[in-house]
Parts: sequence; structure tokens; C-alpha cells
Amino acid sequence: MSLTAAIKGVIPISPTPFHADGRVDEASMDRLTDYFTGCGVDGITILGQLGEAPKLEFAEARAIVARVCKRTTVPIVVGVSAPGFAGMRALAREAMECGAAGVMIGPPNTLRTDDQIVGYYRQAAEAIGADVPFVLQDYPLTFSVVMTPNVIKRIVTENASCVVLKHEDWPGLDKITTLRGFEADGSMRHIAILVGNGGLFLDFEMERGADGANTGYAFPEMLVDVVKLSAAGHRDAAHDLFDAHLPYLRYEQQQGSLGLAVRKYVYMRRGLISCDAQRKPSVALNAHAKQEVEYLLARIARTDKRAVLKAV
Amino acid sequence: MSLTAAIKGVIPISPTPFHADGRVDEASMDRLTDYFTGCGVDGITILGQLGEAPKLEFAEARAIVARVCKRTTVPIVVGVSAPGFAGMRALAREAMECGAAGVMIGPPNTLRTDDQIVGYYRQAAEAIGADVPFVLQDYPLTFSVVMTPNVIKRIVTENASCVVLKHEDWPGLDKITTLRGFEADGSMRHIAILVGNGGLFLDFEMERGADGANTGYAFPEMLVDVVKLSAAGHRDAAHDLFDAHLPYLRYEQQQGSLGLAVRKYVYMRRGLISCDAQRKPSVALNAHAKQEVEYLLARIARTDKRAVLKAV
Amino acid sequence: MSLTAAIKGVIPISPTPFHADGRVDEASMDRLTDYFTGCGVDGITILGQLGEAPKLEFAEARAIVARVCKRTTVPIVVGVSAPGFAGMRALAREAMECGAAGVMIGPPNTLRTDDQIVGYYRQAAEAIGADVPFVLQDYPLTFSVVMTPNVIKRIVTENASCVVLKHEDWPGLDKITTLRGFEADGSMRHIAILVGNGGLFLDFEMERGADGANTGYAFPEMLVDVVKLSAAGHRDAAHDLFDAHLPYLRYEQQQGSLGLAVRKYVYMRRGLISCDAQRKPSVALNAHAKQEVEYLLARIARTDKRAVLKAV
Amino acid sequence: MSLTAAIKGVIPISPTPFHADGRVDEASMDRLTDYFTGCGVDGITILGQLGEAPKLEFAEARAIVARVCKRTTVPIVVGVSAPGFAGMRALAREAMECGAAGVMIGPPNTLRTDDQIVGYYRQAAEAIGADVPFVLQDYPLTFSVVMTPNVIKRIVTENASCVVLKHEDWPGLDKITTLRGFEADGSMRHIAILVGNGGLFLDFEMERGADGANTGYAFPEMLVDVVKLSAAGHRDAAHDLFDAHLPYLRYEQQQGSLGLAVRKYVYMRRGLISCDAQRKPSVALNAHAKQEVEYLLARIARTDKRAVLKAV
Repeated sequence: MSLTAAIKGVIPISPTPFHADGRVDEASMDRLTDYFTGCGVDGITILGQLGEAPKLEFAEARAIVARVCKRTTVPIVVGVSAPGFAGMRALAREAMECGAAGVMIGPPNTLRTDDQIVGYYRQAAEAIGADVPFVLQDYPLTFSVVMTPNVIKRIVTENASCVVLKHEDWPGLDKITTLRGFEADGSMRHIAILVGNGGLFLDFEMERGADGANTGYAFPEMLVDVVKLSAAGHRDAAHDLFDAHLPYLRYEQQQGSLGLAVRKYVYMRRGLISCDAQRKPSVALNAHAKQEVEYLLARIARTDKRAVLKAV
Repeated sequence: MSLTAAIKGVIPISPTPFHADGRVDEASMDRLTDYFTGCGVDGITILGQLGEAPKLEFAEARAIVARVCKRTTVPIVVGVSAPGFAGMRALAREAMECGAAGVMIGPPNTLRTDDQIVGYYRQAAEAIGADVPFVLQDYPLTFSVVMTPNVIKRIVTENASCVVLKHEDWPGLDKITTLRGFEADGSMRHIAILVGNGGLFLDFEMERGADGANTGYAFPEMLVDVVKLSAAGHRDAAHDLFDAHLPYLRYEQQQGSLGLAVRKYVYMRRGLISCDAQRKPSVALNAHAKQEVEYLLARIARTDKRAVLKAV
Repeated sequence: MSLTAAIKGVIPISPTPFHADGRVDEASMDRLTDYFTGCGVDGITILGQLGEAPKLEFAEARAIVARVCKRTTVPIVVGVSAPGFAGMRALAREAMECGAAGVMIGPPNTLRTDDQIVGYYRQAAEAIGADVPFVLQDYPLTFSVVMTPNVIKRIVTENASCVVLKHEDWPGLDKITTLRGFEADGSMRHIAILVGNGGLFLDFEMERGADGANTGYAFPEMLVDVVKLSAAGHRDAAHDLFDAHLPYLRYEQQQGSLGLAVRKYVYMRRGLISCDAQRKPSVALNAHAKQEVEYLLARIARTDKRAVLKAV
Repeated sequence: MSLTAAIKGVIPISPTPFHADGRVDEASMDRLTDYFTGCGVDGITILGQLGEAPKLEFAEARAIVARVCKRTTVPIVVGVSAPGFAGMRALAREAMECGAAGVMIGPPNTLRTDDQIVGYYRQAAEAIGADVPFVLQDYPLTFSVVMTPNVIKRIVTENASCVVLKHEDWPGLDKITTLRGFEADGSMRHIAILVGNGGLFLDFEMERGADGANTGYAFPEMLVDVVKLSAAGHRDAAHDLFDAHLPYLRYEQQQGSLGLAVRKYVYMRRGLISCDAQRKPSVALNAHAKQEVEYLLARIARTDKRAVLKAV
């Protein structure tokens, strides 16, 4: 079951659950995997940036991939971004042997020119092997690498194994329009566009031509519903649901460790992981933040009962 | 009428209106000034980053300051950020002679260390003169300069003329809490904290201790109401109004020229400026974006009638 | 006398001399101008980055341009880099009216993609007017903007008024070879390539196809001689002279205010300017540094008598 | 044999030799190790940035450490910079078990504020264990992280295991003077300062108080001699030897892959490694560059016979 450009729907980015002492929490990983699957997602991405991948030793990363691939039948995408191609290749090959459907590659933050970016992906695709489908992660806010639509076209054209764009540019709506225009005028083959950036523009990104979402919002079921409603042309209903979540979604979409802390806290409050600890470097929510999150969830819960939490 | 640390409320950041051919549109500038004043704002900031200040010649900038200061009785703050202190000083002195209440200074994006940042503000304060009150603009997303709470404390302590923090860090809630803690424990004198970043976290920033808003949202009356409701302790009402605007506010808060294009388009649609043109480098809204904006405003208008627009 | 792509030789970058109290030192400016002219230079660049241009008010900048243009008959190039096109245009037009031969434009440090860079120069060239010849400054170390040879080709091809490349990339030898290759294969018209970066690779840059130097080394006569020797094919002699200066040249080529402080100190010690003060932000040489500079110059003076200084 | 703050002299940064097909070249690694030892170096650093460490798989890195530690009796320092602390810890512990004397840690290029930098080293020191001595690498040109002397003092004071500063700031002479001043006034304990940045300022850095060199120049014997001459107070002799090498040293000190390509080419021409290949991403010297290197070495060889190469 290989990742292809025909993928549509929602592929949540999974956090990596840890025990308070820093060990990987396998039972929680299983619970998360089951929950995602039960939500009707179309795949799961593990070991992404917010999956704290750089904080894992190689053996730990491999064990997580193996565990998740064994646990579910939905396609698994594995983040393999690395400072060097040797490490990237090693993890990509292991992941595919474990049964992953593809990998995700973000650029190192030192790339500047168009040619540097295109050259990097050419070498990365060669390093992991032409048989490994990959997701191109375009996230300037985090990586400081700016890819024009034309650069994406060059990467897609040069590398048959590039099948999905994880689109997280901001502003980014016109980028989707431009890329779909390339497909319409025949200058670029079709790729799937799944949006990230916490889902902050998911509502309009779907209308511009995205195929779904590939992000880590703590209510993946909302992503699934909005994508379906939007794909079915129920514009107002899609926006109504999205807007009900937006005040919290915006709160979760704070950059860096804090956003992850919020997300893990909510996953824990929902009973999906046992502990919201991050490995270092990390940040913990203070009392203000926890109270703010509870307040926001209570407001969602007025219209979306899935946000009702057990009292603490 | 000098800007002081006692300022509270809303100081909108005004765009600079241009005619389609690029000339400054003075009639629209007057209309905007009157509108802001009528909304009950507590001041107006002109020539900020999104006021396209770097695109103005010196004589144009001076003329705008003189015009606005003459037009209204609310305090005027003038953006004087410049690549060198000579230009900064020249505009600051002219602005104060025209009757401005103070100036705003953002850091050059080459500053890195704590000492560089503190040293820069020491020299800037000396350049404009100790008698000119200034707003410290802390906007890492735009300026790539990261100021810790401790750095802000040092700047405030060294420079008596620093009276307001334009707080636009993201994530930034805990920064407000920390700074108010410095005041509480006596380690820093009081300064006003007015929040920016498009107002994206205004709801909670007020609860953390902000004194108001200093940003360019196209419905300043919403900012005024949310700040008042929050200050009066009407938490739910403040969030209800804020949340009604958030889907559009988020859309406006796209970085760079696009966000400004959205904002100017709405100001134009509201009849407050005659033309939404920007000086180069610029970006114009395409048909998709205009339709999206209209859709979002129509949704606000369901609960906030002030967002009702005349049909195009 | 307009700057054209036929220019060859040395165009030193002049510092701007100030009195200790910060006023522009006009007598020293004259002395410098005369000295450059007497060295047989082929032009003079004023108001460059290290000419402390951003620290000057507009009226001061204009007065310097007028003064230097009147003082000498060699072509004058004026740095007009500015945060906005209005200011750039204003200074460029004033400079040309004063008799300047052309202007120099460096990119703002926020540009990232190839298209952003090319688009910036298109708009800049339009802003200053198609009749104003300009020097394209390519200095990644200072501006953080990386231009590939292809980007330079696009800029040259789009803008007939782009006549000189101030080449300061590092490493940069192969860039010269590539650009000369573009000319050889007919894919780019000829432009002059004058090298900067303190002259650190002048010896080999000449051999790779540069037309001369456009930098601020405190012994412009050395630049003139090396360029002539190299152009005449006297390879060893060119290297011998260059190598005698290299230990000090390397010392002068320290980035930022310190390098300028060294340069101004030596100009002062040579009797060409009265005072080595910089406008703020600035740095002054400490006793260690002065002693090191004196030591280095004494070592040059063993073989190049022009480096002999009067005892302090 | 643990690394301590008493270390003095030269610790070259070793490249990692590869076969043309990308495999690690163990015989060349041995030859290099023997050569360094024979030059009278005081240690060897392996797996540094220019040792292409990020291009190695974990098992390869471990094997190199084990091999070199077994081959020589001089102290071995191992670069363990990594995107996450788990990987850093794993390599550091393995290295110490293999017999390494200490490790070297450079900062991730996302750090900005003083507190972020200090916090990072606190967590890194904790991750590798308090019993592992480490070298603090301060290289803003490569890492984009600027450490003030005060930040270095904080790191040294907080972490007893920080014993050496690899000083590669540029400009950086005054930083050495300031740090030695901290020691003199008792505000910081003594640490060894070994200079890098290709040795570009080794001559004066020694005079300012450095203890030696920790860099990758292709003639480590020159570094050894200059450090000895300078330490013995033979100022002119030290500069004479240094200056003879400077034209080539400057050529080698081109940033990134090109500088490494030059270095590996010369090591190959000296017979110390069999092949000058780099792992991807890489750059190869073209004919121009090779000719330039040969020319420069021939010029050194006029006074330093150790630079005489066999004809190609």
C-alpha cells in the first residue's frame, strides 16, 4: 500500500507520547493510533517535526514505526528529515521495510536559492531511493525556506516519487490556485495537496483545490468532517463547524514547543495519551494556559459535543 | 499632549491611502482620521510598517503627520523606524513639532544578541531626544529580532522615554504575564502594553494584563468594544464578539503585502478610503480573495451589523 | 559621462569622513577625492554601505554628492540602496542632476527566492528611471541575499540600465567564470565585473575575468597596480604585490563597524582624513588593534614604501 | 586522559576520507591520524562540521571514533552536534567508551537570545552527562548564532564540564581579550581558547591570549610552528611563517563545501588521503581551482619546503 498522488482526505500528524520520565509511551501510541483510525482518517503521519522526531534515537524511531505500521491498516507516512542524507536514507529504508506507505521530507533551513532547493530534493530522492514515495513539506514559517510554485513544479517534475505536497505556506491560498493552474494547463502532473499549518486556513484551502489536511489538530474528527463537508459542496456547514473550532485551533497553532504543549495537554485531557510530557527542550503549560484551553474547549462544546471533557 | 505609560484603550494603526496613480490620497486620510476618532479610539498610529512608511519620501511623511495632527485631537503616534539614526531623528523631531504625542521604533532585523538590542534602543532614544516618548515595537515575526522579557526590562529601565510596549510576539501570552510580574515585584516600572499582531490573541492578551490594542484591524470599533468589555470583566461577551470576527480577522492577518491588501480592500468597501492601491512593491487581491473576504464579512454581519457592506 | 559596461579598472568605495562631533568633514572629503583621483582610479563610489550612507540625512547625502561631483572629473557612482523605492528614486535623481555617472543598488535582506530578487531589481530600475545606469551589488555576506549566476543573468537581461556587477560573493571565483561563460555563449550581454569583499580574492578574480575592483581598501594605489599588472599578464608580479598587502588587507576585511574603524584609522594615519570617527552605531579601535595595524603596515612597508607612515 | 582547560597547542580538525564510491576510507583515516600525531599535535578532533559528520550513519561515526582512538595516544575530541539531545547523548557516550577525551558541541542555528543559548548548553551538558568534558564551538559565520563574551561566561560558569572554547568568531580578537579579562578579574574560571575559522587570524589571536589552534588547515605543521613561535615570543618569526601560508590559507578558508574540497584536494596531493571525494551534498574542484591551488602551494614552497608537492 504505497502513497500515491491520488490520496485524499485527512492524514493527521501524530505526536509522540512520552512517560513523565522521558520513555516512549507505547500504550498511548497504540491508543492514539486506534483513535485516529476510528475517526476515519486516510493515513497517519508519525515522526514529524511536532512528533519530536529529532529527540529520538534511531532505534526508538524504528520501533515506533514498526509498532504503528503493525497496529493499523491505514497508510503510514514517516518523517525522515535529517541533517544528512545517510541518516535520512537509513530511516526511510527501515520505515518502508516496516510497511510504511511513504516518507515526508522537509528542507534544511540553510537553503536559499531556487536551485539549492531543487538540488536538495533531487539528492534526497536519490538517497532514499526512487521506489520510496515522498511528501514534500513546504513550511516557510518553521524552516525559513521559501519555495515558489515554480520551484515546486520543478521538484515534482524531476522526481516521480514526489506524490504529495504538505502545504503550510502562509499566506498560501494563491499558491494552491497557482499549482492547480499548472495542472490545468498541463505544465505539471497532478499531486495531492494536503494542508498543514495547524489547519488555520483549511476552510478556504479546500475551496482553492486542496485534497485534504495533513496536520496535528487535537480534534482530527473535525478535520475529517470539514474536509468531507467541503468536498461535498456544503460550504456554509463546513465553515460553521470550522469557525466553532477556530478560537481554540488558533490557540493551539502557536509556534514551537508551546503549541505542542497545548496539543499534548488536550490529547491527555481527552484520554488519548497518559501524559503530556515532552522531551527536552520542552515547555510546560502554566495554570493560565490550562485555564484558557479549558475555557476554549468548553466554548466549542456548546455546539460540538465531541469537545466535552471530563471534569478535571 | 504627550504619550505616557498611563495610556489605555485602542490606538489603531492607520494605513496610508493612495490614489491609483500612487499619490497620497489626502481626502481619504482625513476620512480615516475622522472615522477612527468617531470610533472612540484613544490615539492613532500613522506611518507604521503597514502604513507603507518606507515607501514615502521624507516630505510626504512630514505632510501626512502635519495633516493628521491638525485633523484630530486624539494623540498621534508616528512610526520613525529607519535604517539610520539621522533619518529617525529628523522624522521624530518634525513629528513632535507637528504636534505628535510620541513615536514608535521597531528594531533593524540584523540585531541578534541581548546587548545589541538594548544598545540599539539606547542609541535610538538618545538620537530622537530624551523628551520624545516612544513605543517599543516587539514583533519577531516581521523583524526577526527576539526580545526576552528581561531585554524589555532593560530597555524600559534604561530609557525613561520608553512608555509603551507594542506587543506582537507570538506566542506571547506568557510574556505579558512575565512583564506584569516584573511590575508587581518592583523590578520594572509600569509601562502600557498595547497588543498588535493583527489582534489575533487580543481576547486572552487583555486577560493577561494588556492595556489595549495597537493594531490595524479593519473594524477598529470591534477592538474598542472587546477592550472595553474585557476591561469591565464581561469575559463571555468579549469572547463572543471577538469570535464572531475571528474568521475574518485571521484572514486579514496574513503576513506582508497580502494582509495589507485585504485590509485596504475592506476599508475601501466600507467607504473609508477611495482606492485600495498600495505603492510598489505591492500585491493586489484576485477575484478568489475578494469573494472570500465578502463571504467572511457577510458571516460577521449575521451578528455584528457594522460589518454589513453595500452591495458591490 | 555615464557609467557603461565598458568600465575597467578601480573604483574605490570612499568612506564618509566626519568630525569628532559627528558633522560631515568636507575638507577631508575633498582631500580623499583628490587622493583617489591622483591614484589613477577610474571612478569613485560614495555613500556605499561602508560610507555610512544610512546614517546621513537626505540633505547631507545630497550635499556630499554635489561636492564630490564638482571636485573631480572621474565618474562618480552613488549608493542609493534604501528601504523604499521613493527614497531610492529621490536620491538617484538628485545624484544624476549633480552629475553622477550612475548609482549602486544592494538588495534588502528580506529577499529570498529567485523571483523576489529579480522582481526587486525590475521595480528598482523602474523607480530610478531607465536612463540611470546602475551597479548591481551582490554581497551575500552582508545582505543575506544569495544570487545565482542565473538570477544575475535575468537581472542583466531585463534591465538595460544594469551595467556593472559589484561582485562580492564568497566563495565567488566560479561565479565570475560562469558569468563570463554566459557572455561567451551569447546567453547574456557583457557587463563589467568589479570585485569587492575588501579585495580578499582580487588576485584570482582578475584571472577569472573580472574587469577591476570596486572596494574600499585603504591603499587604493595597490588595487590600481594589481589590476594593471594582472591585466597586463604579469601574474607573479601581481601576486607579489598583493601578497605583501594581504596580511593587513585581511585584517581590514573584518565585517561591520570594526573593519570600517580600521580603514578610517589608516586613512587618518595616512593624512587623508582628519578624524577616524564614525557616526553611531560605531566602534572605536582599542590600543591592541591600533598596535596590530601599525605592525602590519610596518611589515608592508618593507617592500611597498607607500605604506610608510609618519611616526605617531 | 580527559580533556581539561589546561590543554594548549594544536588540535587539528580532521576531514573524513571517503572512497570515490562514498565508503569510509579507513586506510586514509589511519594515515591521517598517524600524520597528525607525527606533526606533534596535542589532540585530534574528528566528526566536526567539516568532517562531514552529518553525512555519516551512526554506526559509521562510532566505527571512526573507535578506530582513531585505538590508533593514536593523543587526546581525541569528537563532534557530537545533533538536532536532538537523544542523538547527541548516544554518540557522546559511545565516544567516551571508545576512549575519547571529550566532545565538541555547536549550537543549532535557530537559537537567538542569550537565554536560549545558555539554556541550550545547560541541557546539552546534562544530556551528555556531567562527566563528559566538552568544547564550546562559537562559529557565528556558520551557525548564525552570536554569543557575547557574557554568554560564554555564563555557559562556562554553569557547566563545569565546559573546558575549551573553539573560538571562530569574526571579528573575534577583542572577544579573546575580553574573556581573558574575565579571568584576570576573577569573574570567570580559566578555559582553554583554541582558535578556528581556518586559522585566518591565528597570528594575532595567539598574541591576544589564545592557547592554540583547533582548525582544519591542510598543513597542520604550520599551525604547530606558529603556535610554538608565538608562545615563545618570537613574534616576527611567527608572522613570517604565517604570512607565507596566508595566500593559500585564505583560499582554503572559503565557506562551505568548496573550502572542504580545496582542503581534501591538498591532503590528497600530499599523499595523506587516497581520494578527495565528499559525500553528497558536495562540490568538486574544477580545473581553474586546481591550477590556482597548485600555484599557491608552489609559492609557499619557495620558503616552506614542506609545501613542495610531487608533480601531478
